[in-house]
Amino acid sequence: MIYFDNSATTPIYPEALDTYIKVSQAVIGNPSSLHKLGVTADQLLQQSRKQVADLLHVSSKEIYFTSGGTEGDNWVIKGTAIEKAAYGKHLITSAIEHPAVSKTMQQLEKLGFEVTVIPVDAQGVVSAEAVKNAIRPDTILVSLMAVNNEVGAIQPIKEVGNILEAYPTIHYHVDAVQGLTEFDAVIQHPRIDFLVLSAHKFRGPKGVGILYHKAGKRLAPLLTGGGQESGQRSTTENVPGIASTAKALRMALEDRTVAHQTEMQLKGILIDFLTGYEDVRIFSTEQGAAHIICFAMKAVRGEVMVHAFANEDIILSTTSACSSKKGDVPATLEAMGVPSEWSKCAVRVSLSGENTQAEIERFKEVFHQLHTKFQKIQK
Amino acid sequence: MIYFDNSATTPIYPEALDTYIKVSQAVIGNPSSLHKLGVTADQLLQQSRKQVADLLHVSSKEIYFTSGGTEGDNWVIKGTAIEKAAYGKHLITSAIEHPAVSKTMQQLEKLGFEVTVIPVDAQGVVSAEAVKNAIRPDTILVSLMAVNNEVGAIQPIKEVGNILEAYPTIHYHVDAVQGLTEFDAVIQHPRIDFLVLSAHKFRGPKGVGILYHKAGKRLAPLLTGGGQESGQRSTTENVPGIASTAKALRMALEDRTVAHQTEMQLKGILIDFLTGYEDVRIFSTEQGAAHIICFAMKAVRGEVMVHAFANEDIILSTTSACSSKKGDVPATLEAMGVPSEWSKCAVRVSLSGENTQAEIERFKEVFHQLHTKFQKIQK
Ligand SMILES: Cc1ncc(COP(=O)(O)O)c(C=O)c1O
Ligand SMILES: Cc1ncc(COP(=O)(O)O)c(C=O)c1O
Repeated sequence: MIYFDNSATTPIYPEALDTYIKVSQAVIGNPSSLHKLGVTADQLLQQSRKQVADLLHVSSKEIYFTSGGTEGDNWVIKGTAIEKAAYGKHLITSAIEHPAVSKTMQQLEKLGFEVTVIPVDAQGVVSAEAVKNAIRPDTILVSLMAVNNEVGAIQPIKEVGNILEAYPTIHYHVDAVQGLTEFDAVIQHPRIDFLVLSAHKFRGPKGVGILYHKAGKRLAPLLTGGGQESGQRSTTENVPGIASTAKALRMALEDRTVAHQTEMQLKGILIDFLTGYEDVRIFSTEQGAAHIICFAMKAVRGEVMVHAFANEDIILSTTSACSSKKGDVPATLEAMGVPSEWSKCAVRVSLSGENTQAEIERFKEVFHQLHTKFQKIQK
Repeated sequence: MIYFDNSATTPIYPEALDTYIKVSQAVIGNPSSLHKLGVTADQLLQQSRKQVADLLHVSSKEIYFTSGGTEGDNWVIKGTAIEKAAYGKHLITSAIEHPAVSKTMQQLEKLGFEVTVIPVDAQGVVSAEAVKNAIRPDTILVSLMAVNNEVGAIQPIKEVGNILEAYPTIHYHVDAVQGLTEFDAVIQHPRIDFLVLSAHKFRGPKGVGILYHKAGKRLAPLLTGGGQESGQRSTTENVPGIASTAKALRMALEDRTVAHQTEMQLKGILIDFLTGYEDVRIFSTEQGAAHIICFAMKAVRGEVMVHAFANEDIILSTTSACSSKKGDVPATLEAMGVPSEWSKCAVRVSLSGENTQAEIERFKEVFHQLHTKFQKIQK
C-alpha cells in the first residue's frame, strides 16, 4: 500500500502511540484533582505543554490543547467575535480557507458580523496588499491559512504579519494545520496572535489540537466549564492524547528538514512527470508546500481516479477529505479560477517524509497505464 | 492504592485501550476519504455509532461523538441559544449543575439571554414543580443534570420530562455524565431531547463524549467546518477514541447491574459507619446515586483530609475535581444551604463496581485513625 493522503490524516508514530498507551495505563488521575494521582497527571500535562511550547519557541502559558484543528479555528474566530463585538464586527479571511474557517465565518455572518473574503491569484495565493486594503476601523480579525490543503499554496503569512504591525488591536489568526513542514519559512512571525495545529496531521493521535494563543490577547472561551487550561478551555484534559501529541510534534519537527527535502524531491519528480502529459493540468506550483501536488487528467473525474489508483493500492484523494463525499467543487480551485470541468477532475497527492522514490516510480507506472486506459475509453 | 475518585475520572478498561491501540494501528484512513482506507475508517465509525445507539436504545442518526461532557453541554446550550434566539431567550437550569452547564449559562447571560436558576432542597434535589413554575412563553431550554457530581443527588429527570410533554418546543437537555449507573431509573425518558455522556467517566478514553440528539430537534453546530457528523460537528473523527468509547460503554452497561449492587452495598456500609461519628456530617442520602458519598469531618478542611488519606494510599477528592484547586466553596453544598464552615470540610468518596468491601474496611480504619489524630490536634 502506498499512502499519498497525508494531508487528510497521517498514521500515528509508533512511539507516539506507545506514549499514549503508557500514559493511559500509568497516569489515571484527573489533573485537577488535589491528590497525588492528580498531581502526577498535572505534572505530565504541564511537561507536555512545556515541550510543545519549547518546540514552537513560545512560552508554556501560550499553549492550549484542543480537540483538533477545527476546534482551534472555531475557538479563535468565535472567541474573537464574542470578545471584540463591542469594538467591531468586521472580519477578514481568504477565499481558500479550510471549511473550519470559512464555514465559521459564514455562521458569524448570520449572527450580524461582516466578512471580507480576499480572492486569490491563479496560483491560489492571497495578496498581502489586498488584505491591507480590506482593513477597516471596525476590523477585529484577520484569519489566513499558512498552507492551503487542496493545492499546497503557501500564503504570505509574514507579509501580512508585517502589515498588521500597524494595527495592533486586530487579532491575527493563522491556520497552520498544513503548515508544519514549512515551519520556519512561513509560520514564525511575532505578529501572529493565534496559531492552530492538529496532531493527526503530524503523526500524532486523532482528536488533539494545539492552539498557540499569544499572552495578553483576549479570546472568549468556546468551551466553558470546570476552568481547565487556565479557564480558557474547560473539560477534563486528555492527558494520554496530549503527551502523545507532544511526542509526535517533537519527532515531526526533528524529522522535518529531511522530510522536507524528500518531499521536495519527490514533488519535483512528480511535477516533471505530469508536465509530460498534454491532457494533464497541475494546480500546485514549485513555490508551494513540499508535500502537496494537485492535478487533473482531462475528463476523468477525481473520484474515478481515486478509485482507479486505490485498485492498485495507491492511496490518494480528491482535493480534500471533507469535500470528497459531498461532491462539492473544490473551493480552492474555484477561487483560483479553474473551470469546473477541470476542477471536478482534480486529485491530490499528499506526501510525507516516509514516501520513497520507488513509490513515486510505481505511481508513474500506474498513472501511465490509467492514462492509456482512459484515453482509449474516451475515444 | 485504593481509588475512590471515580467521579473525577476512571482508569480505562484494558479492553477499551486495546481497541484504541488496534484501531490506531490498523485503521489509518480519514473516514471522509473516498478511497478504501477511508471507507474502512468510516465503517468502523458507523459501527461504533450503531453500537452506542443500540446500547442507549436510540437510533444511530441520533448519536454524535464529541470531545467530552463539557463540549456536549456547551454544544446543546449554546447551540439551542443560537438556534432559538428568535423565538425566545429564556433558559432554565438548576443551582447544582456542573460548571460545564452553569458557566455556559453565565456566558449566555452576558450575551443577552436570561437564565432562571432553580434552587434545590437540603438534599440537593431540584423540585420538578419549581421547574414547571419557571416556564415562560419565551423559554427555549431546560437543562438539568441526572446525578449531581458532588453529592450524588438524583434529579427528577422523568418528572420534569412529564411536565415538558406539554411544552414540545422547549429543548430538554440532560447532563448524564454522572448518571450512567442510574441509567434505566433516571435517564430513560422519551421527552429528553439531548443527553450528554463523557467516556472517561465510564472507563473509556479521555477526550471523547457522546451526545444523544433527538431526531428532528435543531441545534446550531458549535464546531463548524468540514461537515463531519452529518454537518453537525466538524473535525476529523477520532476513530480510535470512538471505537474505544463504544467498547467501554458496552462493558460499563453490561457491568452496571452488578456494579450498582456493589456500590449500593459499600455506600450503605460507609454511611452507617460515618453516621457513628458525632462530628461528621453526611451530605449524600440513601436515595442518591450509588457511587457518591460526600461528607465532612468538623473543622478539618477537605484538602487536609484528601492529603491525609492519600498518605495512606486512599484516593478520594474534595467535592469535585475542577473546583478543588481553586478552593471554591462547593457549589452544590452551598445551594443545599450547607454553611461554609462545613462545606469547606467536605470530601467525596466516589466508587466504582471494582471497589471492594476490604477497601471500605481499610478506609474505616484510616478514617478512625485520622479522626482520633485530628481530634487531638483540635484539643
Ligand atoms: C488547513 C486545515 N485546517 C483545519 C483542518 C481541520 O483539522 P481537524 O480535522 O483536525 O479538525 C484541516 C484538516 O482537516 C486542514 O487541512
Ligand atoms: C456532571 C458533569 N457534567 C459534565 C462534566 C464534564 O465532563 P468532561 O470533563 O468530560 O468535559 C463532568 C465531569 O467533569 C460532570 O461530572
